[in-house]
Amino acid sequence: MNHFQFSLLTADPESAARRGRIQTPRGVIETPIFMPVGTQGTVKGMLPEALKDIGAQIILANTYHLFLRPGHERVQRLGGLHRFMNWDRPILTDSGGFQVFSLGELRRITEEGVVFQSHLDGSAHLLSPELSIGVQQALGADIIMAFDECIPYPATREYVLQSTLRSTRWALRCKNALGEKGQQALFGIVQGGMHSDLRRQSSDQLQEIGFDGYAVGGLSVGEEAEVMYEAMDFTLPLLPQDRPRYVMGVGTPENLIEGIRRGVDMFDCVMPTRNARNGVLFTSFGKISIKQARYMDDQQPVDSVCSCYVCRNYSRAYLRHLYQSGEILASVLNTHHNLHYYLDLMTQARQAIEEGSFSRFRREFYRIRQEQNLLSES
Amino acid sequence: MNHFQFSLLTADPESAARRGRIQTPRGVIETPIFMPVGTQGTVKGMLPEALKDIGAQIILANTYHLFLRPGHERVQRLGGLHRFMNWDRPILTDSGGFQVFSLGELRRITEEGVVFQSHLDGSAHLLSPELSIGVQQALGADIIMAFDECIPYPATREYVLQSTLRSTRWALRCKNALGEKGQQALFGIVQGGMHSDLRRQSSDQLQEIGFDGYAVGGLSVGEEAEVMYEAMDFTLPLLPQDRPRYVMGVGTPENLIEGIRRGVDMFDCVMPTRNARNGVLFTSFGKISIKQARYMDDQQPVDSVCSCYVCRNYSRAYLRHLYQSGEILASVLNTHHNLHYYLDLMTQARQAIEEGSFSRFRREFYRIRQEQNLLSES
Repeated sequence: MNHFQFSLLTADPESAARRGRIQTPRGVIETPIFMPVGTQGTVKGMLPEALKDIGAQIILANTYHLFLRPGHERVQRLGGLHRFMNWDRPILTDSGGFQVFSLGELRRITEEGVVFQSHLDGSAHLLSPELSIGVQQALGADIIMAFDECIPYPATREYVLQSTLRSTRWALRCKNALGEKGQQALFGIVQGGMHSDLRRQSSDQLQEIGFDGYAVGGLSVGEEAEVMYEAMDFTLPLLPQDRPRYVMGVGTPENLIEGIRRGVDMFDCVMPTRNARNGVLFTSFGKISIKQARYMDDQQPVDSVCSCYVCRNYSRAYLRHLYQSGEILASVLNTHHNLHYYLDLMTQARQAIEEGSFSRFRREFYRIRQEQNLLSES
Repeated sequence: MNHFQFSLLTADPESAARRGRIQTPRGVIETPIFMPVGTQGTVKGMLPEALKDIGAQIILANTYHLFLRPGHERVQRLGGLHRFMNWDRPILTDSGGFQVFSLGELRRITEEGVVFQSHLDGSAHLLSPELSIGVQQALGADIIMAFDECIPYPATREYVLQSTLRSTRWALRCKNALGEKGQQALFGIVQGGMHSDLRRQSSDQLQEIGFDGYAVGGLSVGEEAEVMYEAMDFTLPLLPQDRPRYVMGVGTPENLIEGIRRGVDMFDCVMPTRNARNGVLFTSFGKISIKQARYMDDQQPVDSVCSCYVCRNYSRAYLRHLYQSGEILASVLNTHHNLHYYLDLMTQARQAIEEGSFSRFRREFYRIRQEQNLLSES
């Protein structure tokens, strides 16, 4: 516990929003925070310096992908993931569970773990809680995640119950596998689907085991936003105040605002990066698709209130040209803008919480979108 | 001539190598220089800041591509190519001739110009000397090129003769089309194939018309290196000493050294950028293919004597991983390294000429390659 510490700095008077700080061996993370996703040891299209330029405090890397290629032992021999990818700030690795469970026909669940076939070459592997921790130790992430099942939605109550109990048994095995050694913080992941009693049971049992932080898993898996918010509503109050809370795989800018309001400290999602590569850009007034012909002669920046490198230097017309021409720079610039948007939104949210004005900030966030949408419809 | 001026600074005592300086409205170009190719209004994978970081003084853009997409008039409406692509240093545009003539079945040559079908949508266009100049004016490049035919190799003497005479007539039309207006420098392009008398005739007639600089076209079109060097040998002495000399579409690092030795001031080639995207990297000891399994665990930088951002921060193992994983950053980092290699080679060549030691520099360049190759074979 010496190397990893969470401090609660400010609590919003009108909501559960909270401003916090996580100390890690590789520096401080101000929360609430969004973590850009660097699946294969690179946030697609972003140099580490560009990530720092937009204020990225921590990134996420995927255990499943790095386990298969280039291999966690290779990364360890090469000095660990930070050195490998030239990123000296904190890294969080997921457990590999989400990707392995997503393989469908290519995987089989046992109590021991999940037997799966590599999406790269079809080779068979068993990913167990112990191996997941071993891989994450070899990669050397600052925050590592317990191996669990991200339960699909919808699922029967019986399936959710059995899966959640198994994930809890796996979480204990993860904790034991990590032991006392090292400087890595281990987070448990609350499951329980959309059932408040199962979420409570999961949360209680995980806290009994004891983790450095708690994630809420199994959200943003196809359910309606309202269902997700309801699950957040009854799950987040179950978590200890003095530990960081991480909602995995979430989400849209609206999801982030709603998550923060309910007391979430950490988010990650491929949305800003993946959308960028498809020409979809986030702005203060909603999403735009830069490939549209309407931007062909548009000299304006993507978002006139955005201060990012892309908006300071390039027009929508240029970004549209790059996208239409299949240029590498299209992905590079679009990703830069989108990640800046997400991180800037977090910066604004943190500031609003500090100033006790988060509710006003949230209303303003929705008002600008609505106004611009009315304008564009008229 | 106020805005564009070439000064000869140092002549190498042992060869025709020369150190020069080109003044343009957008800044100074120290020669000999290599110009990175930015075909569609972007040097693939390179931010303008990265280009400056590696010392790019001038880049090349392609008239043919920008004419078809996004269209030169659109670029002009958007403030010109410099503003469009966020590059405030000099730009040279080619005439579009090379691409149009490369279209094979899709084009037909007349005295008026070349009728061709767009490779994008099959639409028919006539590219004439006058339109080529008009497009290059609209784009707003600092150095523009006369519209000519880059003669294929091999070709009959009669074809070379007729084509060269037509290119000269077109060059005159280009000069007339540009007129006195503007701050753009216009270069004529010497053709004449591998025939010294036709090269002389072309060079004489172009000088009679009078251009701000002279290019040697029709090289690096499939001929042996020795044939190219011979053509340089008899063509470069035909060109005036007080104008920059540009050998188009050349070439390998060896070609550049041999060109400089023969008095060339400017080069351009897609080789460093295209090879980078295919995982082929230039080093002081020759080319390497980063996709090879031998680099899987290689902690070394691409080239231990290279000072570029990539070699300072990443291992061969990481670059190999990025390439194998199809990551955007593979192209970004490989391109950065290769262009740095090319530009650094030019910096070293300039310094050697200044110090009167170009011949020694050239011997050393070959010696290091040979030594390393012997080492890697043993």
